[in-house]
Amino acid sequence: MTKTLGKDSTCSIARSLEVVGDAWTLMIVREAMIAGATRYQEFRDALGIASNSLAKRLALLVEEGLMERRTYQEPGERARDEYVLTEAGRALSLVIGALATWGRTYRPHPDGTSPRFTLDDSGTVAQLAFVTPDGKEVPGSHLTAVRTEDRRLDDVA
Amino acid sequence: MTKTLGKDSTCSIARSLEVVGDAWTLMIVREAMIAGATRYQEFRDALGIASNSLAKRLALLVEEGLMERRTYQEPGERARDEYVLTEAGRALSLVIGALATWGRTYRPHPDGTSPRFTLDDSGTVAQLAFVTPDGKEVPGSHLTAVRTEDRRLDDVA
Repeated sequence: MTKTLGKDSTCSIARSLEVVGDAWTLMIVREAMIAGATRYQEFRDALGIASNSLAKRLALLVEEGLMERRTYQEPGERARDEYVLTEAGRALSLVIGALATWGRTYRPHPDGTSPRFTLDDSGTVAQLAFVTPDGKEVPGSHLTAVRTEDRRLDDVA
Repeated sequence: MTKTLGKDSTCSIARSLEVVGDAWTLMIVREAMIAGATRYQEFRDALGIASNSLAKRLALLVEEGLMERRTYQEPGERARDEYVLTEAGRALSLVIGALATWGRTYRPHPDGTSPRFTLDDSGTVAQLAFVTPDGKEVPGSHLTAVRTEDRRLDDVA
């Protein structure tokens, strides 16, 4: 991964892309998040990804704190690693949800599938959307973006 | 770009990543969306991206319908192309916003910047968030994702 992507390390988008700006990395996160995959072989089977590509990305996900490596051992088998999303990894639901919403709208498929998100404690459904302060959802294609200091982001315009 | 990423073309996330699963592509979209860049040289100067990488990605963005190529000509100069986000391209505000929110939280920077999104017509600020049907915002790290057919996604659980 490029180290100072786009020359400017203050941009929060560039900093995210330095970690997850790669399709396979996000596919592995998808598989952990939605299919509950934790084992090397599960990721391999589900994604059809080359072994060295998978190993490299799992190591990166652990190094970056998005996954935790744990050891498990089944009776009569050797100890193996499994990979579990951390809080930072689970928070990528934002990115996974955004990709799903965009894909569903602009690359529709008759048998398409997307993640449905529910709150862990209550099971209440949650949707990813742009919302105004009065709680109205607005389409992403009708928005203007202005670069703002993070510390001023919560100021009302 | 891999053509059937992850073996399963019904997944809306995989279909999105086939188009925007590349850090530089998203950096170009960022630059168009937030800095208003339209010209080849503007993207080059802002991103420090290699010329052939930029040309390849701009061509892909046009081919995929995320950007429109237009010709402009300034007095005394030769005609040049400019690149303008289409509606599908602008709707990537979802993905750009998700990356910004994640980066701000999990890769904070003392002088960090992120896009602030406002509605084109009214200027009202809009935030990207997971929201429950009663309009409450919930953190992305406390959600469980279940693969669901797109046509059933709006069913209440």
